[in-house]
Amino acid sequence: MSLVIIGTIAYDAIETPFGKTDKIVGGAATFAGLAAAYLYNQVKLVGVVGEDFGDDNLDVLRSKGINLDGVQVRKGEKTFFWAGRYHNDMNSRDTLVTDLNVLADFDPIVPDSYQDCQYLLLGNLTPQVQLTTLNRLQRKPKLVVLDTMNFWMDTAWEDLLTVLKSVDVLTVNDAEARQLAGEYSLVKAAEKILKLGPKYLVIKKGEHGALLFGDGQIFSAPALPLAEVYDPTGAGDTFAGGFIGYLAKVGTLTFHNMKNAVIFGSALASFCVEKFGAERLRELDSASISERLRLFTELTKFDIAN
Amino acid sequence: MSLVIIGTIAYDAIETPFGKTDKIVGGAATFAGLAAAYLYNQVKLVGVVGEDFGDDNLDVLRSKGINLDGVQVRKGEKTFFWAGRYHNDMNSRDTLVTDLNVLADFDPIVPDSYQDCQYLLLGNLTPQVQLTTLNRLQRKPKLVVLDTMNFWMDTAWEDLLTVLKSVDVLTVNDAEARQLAGEYSLVKAAEKILKLGPKYLVIKKGEHGALLFGDGQIFSAPALPLAEVYDPTGAGDTFAGGFIGYLAKVGTLTFHNMKNAVIFGSALASFCVEKFGAERLRELDSASISERLRLFTELTKFDIAN
Repeated sequence: MSLVIIGTIAYDAIETPFGKTDKIVGGAATFAGLAAAYLYNQVKLVGVVGEDFGDDNLDVLRSKGINLDGVQVRKGEKTFFWAGRYHNDMNSRDTLVTDLNVLADFDPIVPDSYQDCQYLLLGNLTPQVQLTTLNRLQRKPKLVVLDTMNFWMDTAWEDLLTVLKSVDVLTVNDAEARQLAGEYSLVKAAEKILKLGPKYLVIKKGEHGALLFGDGQIFSAPALPLAEVYDPTGAGDTFAGGFIGYLAKVGTLTFHNMKNAVIFGSALASFCVEKFGAERLRELDSASISERLRLFTELTKFDIAN
Repeated sequence: MSLVIIGTIAYDAIETPFGKTDKIVGGAATFAGLAAAYLYNQVKLVGVVGEDFGDDNLDVLRSKGINLDGVQVRKGEKTFFWAGRYHNDMNSRDTLVTDLNVLADFDPIVPDSYQDCQYLLLGNLTPQVQLTTLNRLQRKPKLVVLDTMNFWMDTAWEDLLTVLKSVDVLTVNDAEARQLAGEYSLVKAAEKILKLGPKYLVIKKGEHGALLFGDGQIFSAPALPLAEVYDPTGAGDTFAGGFIGYLAKVGTLTFHNMKNAVIFGSALASFCVEKFGAERLRELDSASISERLRLFTELTKFDIAN
């Protein structure tokens, strides 16, 4: 039994009001993998990097127990590179550079050792590659979670609709939910999206938390109020990794557990934004995660004797 | 012992994507009074209307047990009138008309029968009139809650800072908290605002819920996800009325009760936006409020065996 995560593995260069980085390690699979590995010990990545991707960077992932058999290292080619600048409100950003490099013709390899996959996270990437990965698993996983973004709605609409038919959970942000459904009301958007395939929908609202829809129920999770958000890059991927990592750990897919999974994802994402890139995410331990979960409980607990 | 509420009593003309109203009854004291009266039976209003304000409109408030001895009816003058148009996202609006009328020289009357005031809501109004009302009470109330808006920050900054020194709880929206503190981060804004006088701060975030700060703690309350928001007018006033109404009912000012008060305020506000003006707010009963509170509990409850 394993949790397989596919997504980008990238070099990012990030500017926020707090500073600027050179090329640092990023990418959906990196963030999601690190987050999931704190919760589940059979995490396996599918991805691709270039020859310029330092083996020490892969060692960071290996040191967390993450299996990289499905990560191709392409000789003579360069790693996917993204550069972006966040505005003061941290909710909007400009993409400065997108060099697809090895991603341009990425053909995902799913090693035999990954065929025990029960939990699959199709991290943010072209829907066609997400679908190919799913199809290369001989047995349909118990749970398929898909994360995507507005870019694929703009450029690969039909492919996205196709892969959505085969997933159990979709995670998108509020603007993306509105775009996907063509509805401003998130409640109405959720109703429409749940007819496209997913049984559950998570709408990520950044500093405003997240909403979970499914089984005719709604759950509202807070975000941890933080004095400073240093860098939001990867927070959504981290959320998705924490979400599916928790479900892989507990193994039962009830709404009750989905709610907890949203809280675990939110807690891990709250760490992610405290430093640049995946820096904070690399240095966690179970005690710091437990403490953060306790804060989430404190933050929302009330008791009305009604 | 009573709960005294001062605020505008108005005619509003509202345009939203769902429709358009003629002059309907609105105003901070109206919304807050109706909300509070469902929770506490000694609600007393201070306000002013013109001769054009139908007595049937006052009867609606009286029928809820609200004392109007402090509401002046000015012969030959007209009621405060506001007209506004909401944009599609319902988070921004244009003011089309503001006719101050009787509000221009409003001198609040605090009748002797109001001197038993233990709970005082200084609803949205000029800070000078809020301060005058407070000063006309012979004994300082057990709890003073102040609601204000960006307009007073722009036009009556010093008066606002003065009255803030004498209040226990401030309720503002997120943009207003940022403006008042000069800080983008709501956590940092709250730290600064709590040094201006209030012991507690509630930041209302509309569809994203509310945050309560105080006693070194933070509480995050959700908003009820609604398929449609017909008219947000008065939601903030309704919140404030529900908030202080609950505290007047329970009588003990702990952080635990403040949290519940935020939930009661949010629940009542969630009704307010379901119809135009105060229409929905007039027709509630304890069963519908209890059911709404149950939804809030369901919406946020999770249980991590951590």
